[in-house]
Amino acid sequence: MEVGVGIVGIGNVGSGALQILTENAKSITEKLGFPLRVKVVCSRNIRAKKLPAGCSEVTRTTDWQDVVRHPEVDVVVETIGGTATASHVIETALRERKSVVTANKELMALRGADLWALANQNGVNLTMEASVAGGIPIHTVLREGIAGDRVVELYGILNGTSNFILTEIEKSNAAFDSVLAEAQQLGYAEADPSADIDGLDARSKLAILAALAFGEKLTPNDIYTEGIRRIMPVDFQYAHQLQYTIRLLCLARQTEEGLLLSVRPSLIPQAAILAHVKGAYNAIWIRGQYGEDTFYYGRGAGSKPTGVAIVSDLMRVAREIRFGSPERVSPFAHERLGDYKPLKVPIQKAPYYLRFRVEDKAGIIAALATILAKHNIGIDAVLQLPREDWRDLPFVITTEPAQEQAIREAVFEIRDAEFLVEPPFVMPMERGF
Amino acid sequence: MEVGVGIVGIGNVGSGALQILTENAKSITEKLGFPLRVKVVCSRNIRAKKLPAGCSEVTRTTDWQDVVRHPEVDVVVETIGGTATASHVIETALRERKSVVTANKELMALRGADLWALANQNGVNLTMEASVAGGIPIHTVLREGIAGDRVVELYGILNGTSNFILTEIEKSNAAFDSVLAEAQQLGYAEADPSADIDGLDARSKLAILAALAFGEKLTPNDIYTEGIRRIMPVDFQYAHQLQYTIRLLCLARQTEEGLLLSVRPSLIPQAAILAHVKGAYNAIWIRGQYGEDTFYYGRGAGSKPTGVAIVSDLMRVAREIRFGSPERVSPFAHERLGDYKPLKVPIQKAPYYLRFRVEDKAGIIAALATILAKHNIGIDAVLQLPREDWRDLPFVITTEPAQEQAIREAVFEIRDAEFLVEPPFVMPMERGF
Repeated sequence: MEVGVGIVGIGNVGSGALQILTENAKSITEKLGFPLRVKVVCSRNIRAKKLPAGCSEVTRTTDWQDVVRHPEVDVVVETIGGTATASHVIETALRERKSVVTANKELMALRGADLWALANQNGVNLTMEASVAGGIPIHTVLREGIAGDRVVELYGILNGTSNFILTEIEKSNAAFDSVLAEAQQLGYAEADPSADIDGLDARSKLAILAALAFGEKLTPNDIYTEGIRRIMPVDFQYAHQLQYTIRLLCLARQTEEGLLLSVRPSLIPQAAILAHVKGAYNAIWIRGQYGEDTFYYGRGAGSKPTGVAIVSDLMRVAREIRFGSPERVSPFAHERLGDYKPLKVPIQKAPYYLRFRVEDKAGIIAALATILAKHNIGIDAVLQLPREDWRDLPFVITTEPAQEQAIREAVFEIRDAEFLVEPPFVMPMERGF
Repeated sequence: MEVGVGIVGIGNVGSGALQILTENAKSITEKLGFPLRVKVVCSRNIRAKKLPAGCSEVTRTTDWQDVVRHPEVDVVVETIGGTATASHVIETALRERKSVVTANKELMALRGADLWALANQNGVNLTMEASVAGGIPIHTVLREGIAGDRVVELYGILNGTSNFILTEIEKSNAAFDSVLAEAQQLGYAEADPSADIDGLDARSKLAILAALAFGEKLTPNDIYTEGIRRIMPVDFQYAHQLQYTIRLLCLARQTEEGLLLSVRPSLIPQAAILAHVKGAYNAIWIRGQYGEDTFYYGRGAGSKPTGVAIVSDLMRVAREIRFGSPERVSPFAHERLGDYKPLKVPIQKAPYYLRFRVEDKAGIIAALATILAKHNIGIDAVLQLPREDWRDLPFVITTEPAQEQAIREAVFEIRDAEFLVEPPFVMPMERGF
């Protein structure tokens, strides 16, 4: 038994979801125990679209009614955006008793609560992980992962375009307009950049997150909003003098007086983890009454990261349709696509940090270098702190990227040297993030 | 209709869960649509335990059989830890067709897959969010939030004690043994610290996460493990010279040869977001084939953060028991505990950053300071960058914490001053994280 999927909108996000559903089909099927099958896709210019390999049997249409009324479609993915047609698509699908997975922040922020009620009336689901913060599963975190907590405050960097522009100004000291032009050229900003740089996109996302975090009915108009057009390079210079930086910060905070909501450029301490959110990334920082602070970070947009959000929502909805709740993804063995046998010996290639404690003698570096060279390990640096008492002074050799096995063999040979006070201490230098 | 809960183990974690279930009961009931009711709690020294207010009707027992066989208990929480008795508790509960929520990393890492199969045979659920990374809902993220992705590699800082010790050495330059003694005194490290500082605790957690991320059956013995006992303050000095720092890093990586698994002290770049994980915090960094990199951060342990994980699991399991899957927590209005009306005007008290562009005249600072003083706003600093051309030079005043309303009124008065080239630019200085 399979679950049928129809997609309305084959733009950036819809095609990302379609690619993952196609390429990653085997893994998805193993996790679910049944396949997710795309039956029909809709786009105004569907004939011009190149669909991924494996979509030859997928029906193509330019009429969304063909998707929402398709007898084999159980779940409709809405990725056209905007509020006009998307409203009709989602309402019609829900009334046809099809669950809906959407990436539509604008519509969810404005009419999400009504559409949720309509989904409930019709006994189907409406999910929207893709509508906020692209690849960060923040909706799942708030609805499931920390559902037992009470959110006290929530900060977000929710617009990747603004964050890209701000961190470019910070880095290059260039003026706002020239950085915006660069962002437009790179495709990070739209020809009409207003939704991003005036804070409107972030405002919709904050409305969705705050409604969920505080259980309140909110609209974007409830949120004080200010964009980044007035930011100048000199602001960063001052901010740095203060050991701060500047971000377009979304804020929702429970206060005695009410719920404080704002989107506005703000200084944040350079030492704060949010200050390390650079480029087109998004992040959310949550303080809970019981769980204290948690932080979530990832791609804010993009075809594939947002596609992951849609496919993950589809999997959840499909499990409900197919099994009801008792059947779930096993947290243990559930797929065997690769042959991922655990390795007894680490095999990574990385630079290594080798620390030696030695008795002070001539020729030690030469002796060590000779052994390393014999095992084809290049030396990157030799580090030694100045000290008055040289006895037992640790010094460090860092290597070029090398195989763990070679390092182990070299260390094995080195550790018999009579000048060593203790065996060398070895650490890999991780650079993968 | 309610769902009945029994708790076996009223130590640090069990009492945190009990506290949240009691204090936060109204919110939980509103989110679920029905109450979660604690029926019975078990501890070897239950008579000596002080239970939270509101637990007067909860049965107390010293025999776990009274919990798992209680007719009104639908879900059993296991928070006794260890592998011996906990095994019996969980197996008996599952055979009695009661779902189980556990915080037991050691047992889940060793026998989780078998117990999961037993839960499936009996048509009940087994959840373990609390077993890894305390307050970070990483299990939910991997099982639901990014289920559509394929994990390529996963890094973790999964032992708060080790991380506390390492970052204390980094900060104070003190020797390992004295920092360990301090950690023991503060209650961050056990009298026998081996499980933490030799990497065994982190190894169990990595086994659970890697099994889930890669869908493989793993045991802790599959993981190369090395603790932090050999770390010296001088290692941090060298690491810093390299612009690196040192953490006890857990690693799971898909390679062509197999699955690379290790727990070991490692250098990580100071610029990496993982380097900002300090003290007793945990974090997980995931690279997905489609979603690219995401990062999750929070309290690694503690009564209440781990309690949130247990209560969130209980809510998920309770929904399944009570409704089957179609009924869910609304992502929109679902609770009205406080009176969280959205505020039209931000009311936070914060320091502010005021930037002015002015024509060069005498007495400007005095004029501005007078207006600020009139509105009871204290000045923290006046900043001005050196420049050859003084015309139009922006300068900045930062304030003591002040109400937004006072700032607005002062700015309203200031902006009519004839020396201003443009209205003042105002940003709050967020320090809440």
